[in-house]
Amino acid sequence: MPSKGILIVLSGPSGSGKGTVLKKMLEKSIDMKLSISATTRSPRVGEKHGEDYYFISKAEFIQLISKNEVLEHTEYCENYYGTPTKQVNEWLEKGKDVVLEIEVNGGTQIKKKSPSAISIFILPPSLKVLRERLIARKTESIDIIEKRLQIALKEIQEAYNYDYVVVNDSLDECVEKICSIISLEKNKLKEKFNIIREVLENV
Amino acid sequence: MPSKGILIVLSGPSGSGKGTVLKKMLEKSIDMKLSISATTRSPRVGEKHGEDYYFISKAEFIQLISKNEVLEHTEYCENYYGTPTKQVNEWLEKGKDVVLEIEVNGGTQIKKKSPSAISIFILPPSLKVLRERLIARKTESIDIIEKRLQIALKEIQEAYNYDYVVVNDSLDECVEKICSIISLEKNKLKEKFNIIREVLENV
Repeated sequence: MPSKGILIVLSGPSGSGKGTVLKKMLEKSIDMKLSISATTRSPRVGEKHGEDYYFISKAEFIQLISKNEVLEHTEYCENYYGTPTKQVNEWLEKGKDVVLEIEVNGGTQIKKKSPSAISIFILPPSLKVLRERLIARKTESIDIIEKRLQIALKEIQEAYNYDYVVVNDSLDECVEKICSIISLEKNKLKEKFNIIREVLENV
Repeated sequence: MPSKGILIVLSGPSGSGKGTVLKKMLEKSIDMKLSISATTRSPRVGEKHGEDYYFISKAEFIQLISKNEVLEHTEYCENYYGTPTKQVNEWLEKGKDVVLEIEVNGGTQIKKKSPSAISIFILPPSLKVLRERLIARKTESIDIIEKRLQIALKEIQEAYNYDYVVVNDSLDECVEKICSIISLEKNKLKEKFNIIREVLENV
């Protein structure tokens, strides 16, 4: 029998505000856990093992991959990043919902490994608004902003492969929509379990 | 951009009545196509190539597998059976919905390859009714019926991995339920496409 919680994959381009959305979601629900990634890069000042990341060696990471104990992984600047399966499964079995904030390639990998995962893509209201948001941050040059927009455009093409797309225009409405999607999916799961149980019990 | 039609995986144990359900579904919708399997076994009397099966050689089948041109396949009594991808994709791109009537292992394979497929498991109202239905057929001995029930019990455990489970108590109600699931999923797909298009158009 599969687990009682649901696995939620959350993706969206830089500037979609998915970090803030996720923070609000976690504040609202005590039954929701945020998956912690493993990485082979060194911890930065203030980062804590088991909180920000699981900081592990390359040998340990390669062993996780070979044992099929990562839900997804990627290599970036000669370091591995990925989602260890064990903790996620433990939470799901306890009935907790687990959220994975992940870039689009990782999201696709997870749907292939765990088709029962619910994937949600957060969209900016428009490319115009996305550009304005990136400019308003005042942290990057116009060149870099244009590059980010090009990447965002490519990422948004991947949104077609997600189960749900939610526009983040008003933060509260966006969080509300995501919470109702999760609630709907949990009800569907519960109904499914009840139907199967009834069929099996009536021998 | 993914295809406009949806891929529907239909499974259920022997005695669930999925063949009759499927026939009714195809009668009701002109936009629905039944996927035709390929096999390496010889055609039986009256069976037509491209209608009952695509009858192909073992060499051809192995080539399909190596080129990743089958959605799923299995080996049974030294013959291959599987779903060629090409025809399915052509129909989906034309906006047709494609149904695959498939045993549970094949269904799981498809969900891993095409996470956007909708999987539906047809259940008998109870194991008691399933036994009665198999007895009423009068085609099999009690020993064989008991074996079939054991297989059905194992298959029903797999229903947890399907997106939807539908009980086939009244045939009409069961078909109605499946049609509304398909309609709901098509609306979800349409809404998703519209949202993404709007975001991309407003540059």
